[in-house]
Amino acid sequence: MRYGLIGSTGRMGREIKEVFAQHELVLEISEEGRNETGVPEVIVDFSNRDVLPTTLGVCREFRSGLVIGTTALEDNDLASLKELSKSYPVVQSYNFSVGINILRILLRESREFFKGMDAEMIEVHHNKKKDMPSGTALILKESLGMDIPIHSVRAGGVPGDHEIVFASEGEVIRISHRAISRKVFALGALRAAEFCRTVKSGLYSFEEVLRWTQKR
Amino acid sequence: MRYGLIGSTGRMGREIKEVFAQHELVLEISEEGRNETGVPEVIVDFSNRDVLPTTLGVCREFRSGLVIGTTALEDNDLASLKELSKSYPVVQSYNFSVGINILRILLRESREFFKGMDAEMIEVHHNKKKDMPSGTALILKESLGMDIPIHSVRAGGVPGDHEIVFASEGEVIRISHRAISRKVFALGALRAAEFCRTVKSGLYSFEEVLRWTQKR
Amino acid sequence: MRYGLIGSTGRMGREIKEVFAQHELVLEISEEGRNETGVPEVIVDFSNRDVLPTTLGVCREFRSGLVIGTTALEDNDLASLKELSKSYPVVQSYNFSVGINILRILLRESREFFKGMDAEMIEVHHNKKKDMPSGTALILKESLGMDIPIHSVRAGGVPGDHEIVFASEGEVIRISHRAISRKVFALGALRAAEFCRTVKSGLYSFEEVLRWTQKR
Amino acid sequence: MRYGLIGSTGRMGREIKEVFAQHELVLEISEEGRNETGVPEVIVDFSNRDVLPTTLGVCREFRSGLVIGTTALEDNDLASLKELSKSYPVVQSYNFSVGINILRILLRESREFFKGMDAEMIEVHHNKKKDMPSGTALILKESLGMDIPIHSVRAGGVPGDHEIVFASEGEVIRISHRAISRKVFALGALRAAEFCRTVKSGLYSFEEVLRWTQKR
Repeated sequence: MRYGLIGSTGRMGREIKEVFAQHELVLEISEEGRNETGVPEVIVDFSNRDVLPTTLGVCREFRSGLVIGTTALEDNDLASLKELSKSYPVVQSYNFSVGINILRILLRESREFFKGMDAEMIEVHHNKKKDMPSGTALILKESLGMDIPIHSVRAGGVPGDHEIVFASEGEVIRISHRAISRKVFALGALRAAEFCRTVKSGLYSFEEVLRWTQKR
Repeated sequence: MRYGLIGSTGRMGREIKEVFAQHELVLEISEEGRNETGVPEVIVDFSNRDVLPTTLGVCREFRSGLVIGTTALEDNDLASLKELSKSYPVVQSYNFSVGINILRILLRESREFFKGMDAEMIEVHHNKKKDMPSGTALILKESLGMDIPIHSVRAGGVPGDHEIVFASEGEVIRISHRAISRKVFALGALRAAEFCRTVKSGLYSFEEVLRWTQKR
Repeated sequence: MRYGLIGSTGRMGREIKEVFAQHELVLEISEEGRNETGVPEVIVDFSNRDVLPTTLGVCREFRSGLVIGTTALEDNDLASLKELSKSYPVVQSYNFSVGINILRILLRESREFFKGMDAEMIEVHHNKKKDMPSGTALILKESLGMDIPIHSVRAGGVPGDHEIVFASEGEVIRISHRAISRKVFALGALRAAEFCRTVKSGLYSFEEVLRWTQKR
Repeated sequence: MRYGLIGSTGRMGREIKEVFAQHELVLEISEEGRNETGVPEVIVDFSNRDVLPTTLGVCREFRSGLVIGTTALEDNDLASLKELSKSYPVVQSYNFSVGINILRILLRESREFFKGMDAEMIEVHHNKKKDMPSGTALILKESLGMDIPIHSVRAGGVPGDHEIVFASEGEVIRISHRAISRKVFALGALRAAEFCRTVKSGLYSFEEVLRWTQKR
């Protein structure tokens, strides 16, 4: 696969390069400039919303799909992506971790089974994380559809653990996720990029990528 | 609910009595004899297969449903239950834990998502347990549909823990179940008994009980 | 060992009888009265402080040691026990779990190693528990000697889990305890009773029982 | 602190540079050659035993201490280090993780308490790890002084988890360690380097570094 990378010198940019090593990086755009050696099939952008106009322009220029993990997008950003997706496949998500998205599906589809059990969530993150609870904890709670207490532990350099504890009188079920490193998001971006090459224009979520993976 | 209990003096029998305390025990059959004070709507039997003929007879006598958790049933036992279920509702399962059955459904329905992740199971049971791996571990493996390694820890008085670890390069998902006590099976029997009162004749699994619960 | 049991019909009383099954119960005192068939070497009392005068009287009557797990003792109760201990061995503790006491020692002796790591505690108890955090959590925190956050999860019928999470930039250490059932306290009482038979008069903590066990 | 780094371009070398960022790297030796800009107070070497003669020479040249984490040393290597330690402080260990060394001390000092409990170990590592059980698992088992079963789970990209499960009839204690990343070993090397500057000549283990840290 020939791919382009926006924000190639940032932390996520470097992770993506490493994970996409078997693919051909034919376009790099960063603060250091633009380096083009071919025509990308898909553009990957995990940088920030300021760069979005450039990203959209590049997609149109090369008629390529887009995988975008930029967070804190605003309504007009999402509208622009929607517009772009009329012509090209666009995968947009705030969380490209395969595991977290599996958990979201599991929780949503099994929420009826957990009715009548008590449930609480425990999330552990490094002590530099400022938000509490984590955005991912909120997403998981929403998937579960129950208003459960969330306990936030802030300790050391933990990249991110989430655990939901369900308990009835006689038993305990735990469903947990642990990010080993930031690499997990780059792996999700790779899946999304591969998905992009096989689908028609349209706006897709990461869950659709997952469901597609499962059919292969 | 008026219920009858076969094997009322055994360990499970006592658990059932405690959990069914709000219901009316109108028939008790044990080694100590038979005590009848009314007409049961459902018969509960978690004793052993030797008693099965008595149990079947009692169901016909009172035209009542049956919840049967007896293990190690043989083919002809199952055939007798099948026959009985033509006239009355029969719930038969080797595991009446709600949680384990939730896990079975979760694993079966999500197995496609876990493709490509490594998976192993760890189960912990008391040091008097003779079989290894546990029957429940085998059931869970079957639900997952992957031939995964099972690690059996035998330690102290642990009633029964099962955990499946899934891992990819960048993340770990754990799904675990812990039985707090034997009571969990009595609680499952109660759900099944309530289910029995609402359905027509037929042979039902505990999963059907669960799905019915979820619709209420 | 010949032992006496105060509060023999309560929940803990029944657990103690079961765990002490190999020993000779020669004195029972409960709401149902007093039943005496011999001279006890040690008296066990896990009931409540109202009964304390009776208990003290019985110890003097039979010149026997005392194992007392009654909680919420007041200053004058403790003074009476102190007085009794001048003549007989008395083991007094608010927590007779061997494991929790092992953890207390571990935490106290290793607290210096954990300096510089972040630490938080998570405790899980059944949803009927009223106090939050648990008394045991507070005891463990005191042993650690650090003022750490305690997260209290209240769910289902969990008898009692306590976990301390330590984390630095590069690693996580967890030390956890789980009570399987109330039986654990009866097992601790048994150790304490055996200890009582071997020591002179004096007031002992459960930790001293533990250290004695380790030397055998 | 002015330090020298042997093997500065390898994976551990890069971790060490990052973690030692506040200190002055005045000597680098790697396959790419030697770069010297000052006199190191301590030399750090986590490369491989082929380089040992160079490392020893450099220590004598600069009259500096040594922190050496090279594994698979042979008897004559250890003898050379012993010889060097007559003149300079040398810290040698196969595992510079603070946490694992804390666990070793905990287990060694509390082994008597765990007598009579069942114990088993579970270790989880990435699926590329070839040895089974892990070297660290063996070290921990040795510290515990009990011949316990070790279950090795090989899954995904897990850097390294170790957990020891102790259980009696009524309770379970778990002591676990998780490496978040390779950085943990570089952090240990930093502590050892700081220790080196304060002690006289001699051969030290990482445990002595830990005990020194705890006194500060």
